[in-house]
Amino acid sequence: MTKTSAGNFFEDFSVGQDLVHAVPRTVSAGDVSLYTALYGMRFPVQSSTEFARRIGYADAPLDDLLVFHIVFGKTVPEVSLNAAANLGYAGMRFAAPVFPGDTLTARSTVIGLKENSNGKTGTVYVRSSGVNQTGQTVLEYVRWVMVKKRSLDGHAPEPVVPDLPEAVPAANLTVPEAFHGDGWDFDLSGELHRWGDYEPGEKIDHVDGMTIEEAEHQIAARLYQNTSKVHFNQHQEKEGRFGRRIVYGGHVISLARALSFNGLANAFRVAAVNAGSHTAPAFAGDTVYAWSEVLERIELPGRDDPGALRLRTVATKDMPCSSFPLRAADGTYEKAVLLDLDYTVLIPR
Amino acid sequence: MTKTSAGNFFEDFSVGQDLVHAVPRTVSAGDVSLYTALYGMRFPVQSSTEFARRIGYADAPLDDLLVFHIVFGKTVPEVSLNAAANLGYAGMRFAAPVFPGDTLTARSTVIGLKENSNGKTGTVYVRSSGVNQTGQTVLEYVRWVMVKKRSLDGHAPEPVVPDLPEAVPAANLTVPEAFHGDGWDFDLSGELHRWGDYEPGEKIDHVDGMTIEEAEHQIAARLYQNTSKVHFNQHQEKEGRFGRRIVYGGHVISLARALSFNGLANAFRVAAVNAGSHTAPAFAGDTVYAWSEVLERIELPGRDDPGALRLRTVATKDMPCSSFPLRAADGTYEKAVLLDLDYTVLIPR
Amino acid sequence: MTKTSAGNFFEDFSVGQDLVHAVPRTVSAGDVSLYTALYGMRFPVQSSTEFARRIGYADAPLDDLLVFHIVFGKTVPEVSLNAAANLGYAGMRFAAPVFPGDTLTARSTVIGLKENSNGKTGTVYVRSSGVNQTGQTVLEYVRWVMVKKRSLDGHAPEPVVPDLPEAVPAANLTVPEAFHGDGWDFDLSGELHRWGDYEPGEKIDHVDGMTIEEAEHQIAARLYQNTSKVHFNQHQEKEGRFGRRIVYGGHVISLARALSFNGLANAFRVAAVNAGSHTAPAFAGDTVYAWSEVLERIELPGRDDPGALRLRTVATKDMPCSSFPLRAADGTYEKAVLLDLDYTVLIPR
Repeated sequence: MTKTSAGNFFEDFSVGQDLVHAVPRTVSAGDVSLYTALYGMRFPVQSSTEFARRIGYADAPLDDLLVFHIVFGKTVPEVSLNAAANLGYAGMRFAAPVFPGDTLTARSTVIGLKENSNGKTGTVYVRSSGVNQTGQTVLEYVRWVMVKKRSLDGHAPEPVVPDLPEAVPAANLTVPEAFHGDGWDFDLSGELHRWGDYEPGEKIDHVDGMTIEEAEHQIAARLYQNTSKVHFNQHQEKEGRFGRRIVYGGHVISLARALSFNGLANAFRVAAVNAGSHTAPAFAGDTVYAWSEVLERIELPGRDDPGALRLRTVATKDMPCSSFPLRAADGTYEKAVLLDLDYTVLIPR
Repeated sequence: MTKTSAGNFFEDFSVGQDLVHAVPRTVSAGDVSLYTALYGMRFPVQSSTEFARRIGYADAPLDDLLVFHIVFGKTVPEVSLNAAANLGYAGMRFAAPVFPGDTLTARSTVIGLKENSNGKTGTVYVRSSGVNQTGQTVLEYVRWVMVKKRSLDGHAPEPVVPDLPEAVPAANLTVPEAFHGDGWDFDLSGELHRWGDYEPGEKIDHVDGMTIEEAEHQIAARLYQNTSKVHFNQHQEKEGRFGRRIVYGGHVISLARALSFNGLANAFRVAAVNAGSHTAPAFAGDTVYAWSEVLERIELPGRDDPGALRLRTVATKDMPCSSFPLRAADGTYEKAVLLDLDYTVLIPR
Repeated sequence: MTKTSAGNFFEDFSVGQDLVHAVPRTVSAGDVSLYTALYGMRFPVQSSTEFARRIGYADAPLDDLLVFHIVFGKTVPEVSLNAAANLGYAGMRFAAPVFPGDTLTARSTVIGLKENSNGKTGTVYVRSSGVNQTGQTVLEYVRWVMVKKRSLDGHAPEPVVPDLPEAVPAANLTVPEAFHGDGWDFDLSGELHRWGDYEPGEKIDHVDGMTIEEAEHQIAARLYQNTSKVHFNQHQEKEGRFGRRIVYGGHVISLARALSFNGLANAFRVAAVNAGSHTAPAFAGDTVYAWSEVLERIELPGRDDPGALRLRTVATKDMPCSSFPLRAADGTYEKAVLLDLDYTVLIPR
């Protein structure tokens, strides 16, 4: 009997199956420092306990995307070790805030399966969630991945494709209970723009670019205990499709979010990710730029403050974003586009 | 209206203007670990809570230069985003020690302005300070930078050039109140040399060299939330003056200070920076060496212990320092010289 | 008098000599985060305070190898700054667990000396130990290194070669007093394999590979305050034997241990290192793989739970380990082999 795990193949999944993911993780101020150092994150609620307390938090919460990366990393060994492609996210909802000292675990349930016609792969839909040490959900989301089959002769299960929400509805967004916007200091937050200053259709070029180094994305993915082989093994990847290690897609999301501070400094919380596509792989040496479009201005039920903005943030490689690159004339993504992320942030009114 | 900031140009500054810098920062043990990992810092007061307590500190304070980098980083968006050159520092005084858990904010006042004769740039003098969550000053200094003008037609303000001190006087150095040198363990600190063992004119070759990697200086500058574009964007810098990303000058200061442990192990606190010049840019791949000269042995008013040493520390690239390289025959800095720093340290008597 | 230390040469050592190593180090959650980020460590006892408490620890202890690296780093300035080779380890015993907030110091005693026949070098045997702030030993081990002589005319001391144990006996292994295996959650730990599932002679291929970057091994070695020149100075090493910086051998040990999680997920503590050889140098760009062999299944005196496994873990470069590479036909190590480590782990029964 071999002691090592080769990960699950398409045949190993069944609808309704529960997956308990290994290795609980206590997060700490050390993780926060590394996250700052990897992306240059400057959002004040996450950067300062004083600022966080003044608006109603007990402490500075962890960056929402750091929570996402840690929960996501836990799901890799059971869900996507044999993935051919990470296809998408839906209905991602950030719930209880996470503070240094919290311990996170993750679980997933298989909610859909569909074999591909080539007989070599199939799509697996999982609903995953991250939970803290008191049992509160900190994050839940649906992800679907293309997973390899163990053999061409494997079974073809009855296709089950779950209904996926187009976006997380306002009523399902988690707003910090104690939030009080009168404690918000717009001098210290970096910009004066509030919820009402953003107009649907408005586009923002985040101006700056950030070049990725191999050591950086490896350090990031390991911090998240992500075990996906393609990020770490040059000896193997040099024979692979790209000849190089592939940067964890979440690394690009965090870079784009960090760059978006310039123009969205007061967007203090990612409340939801409605949809997201990694439209091209990123590699060390790429310089990531980003721009955003305001998709919708959302009032939160029963709350005067904060408000929500639904945003699209697009990340590119080696292409400044003053012209807001997205799609070519034929409707496909422009080659320079790495990420098309549809998400919802909270921002003071 | 654009939501992003392009930073201030020379025309945007006026003498007496107050600048509140954004993004308060709570420092933590995570920052300390990263700082150690980036420079190999070994000064025992900063490395050990036990050592720090034995000489009168409540806890191990953060490295003074880490405090400087964080405060400096906050000033970049308003002061030097459009800088053509960082010209100098004066009168830098480290005041209240900073401990993990403290929250730092920064402010600046414009104290001088002088347009250059070419009409394209001007010098801006600011007095900046870092303050902790109880309002104590942790650091203050004057910096002057050459800032680009928005247009050639801009106004030429009345030149105001502030009087700058040649050095921070002994009476203005902050000595930790509770310091008691009888708690100092010279076995654990690494060297036996005390204040009285250093002679003005004495030169010390710090022997070792440390090679800079792109990932390292980027991680450092982001840890400090420094937003200066030239450190991070290879896509843009490859078209720039050097064809490469420029290492944050403060990174070289910290490398030099870390190397200086070999010969100055008991110099436990940077109390002041009297003057400093980044005489050449540093790039990834450069190996930094350093040497120091004792400029002055200073008794601290009203205290038997510690004493102060005024030092010059010179950092070079790709040149060992056994011959103490500094200036060429024509009086200009030798090409290998990166940094000429005049500063004052505290050391047990 | 020069203020800097050139380190000890062979002539500077004498049997019975005590060496107090400088710079006490308070360890923190920041060190834990960096350690996770450098190796992708996933052992649950070190990753989660909740998991650690459930099996009897007061808190999540630091990874044993992180403790080793910090203690080892302290010994470098006095023991191996002028080493020509790190020859071996014996009798390494991990004692009291180390928690964030503990302060570590190190001492060594010279227990053996033997000049080499070439008159240029000699072997120095030291017994080193790490101690926490309450005086408890956290680690002790014997190391021997080949150290350069200052001159060919130096004295040739009476050779003293200590008796070294072939392995740390079961009775000398430290088992956490309060350990109770009923708190062990095999779903959360990642694998179901217990002590009794491992058979002597069994070999495990740990499958994955991890590529080393210059920034990573430098960051690691500096985190450990290791001052060995060969890891950091490309300007000097480009003229050296390999033309490149040499990766700290302990970095390879930690990579191998992290990779071994796949197959040894429940091996929650390194209790001893019986012997270890760095059989070839590692460099940036190398991809490290690993495999393990179960050497012995050990019952711990007076305890039902946990048990111990004596393991050999072999690390290779640029060579997957499905064929368990070790020695060539002539008995020498295969070229790809970097590390041959004989050690003892604790694992629930």
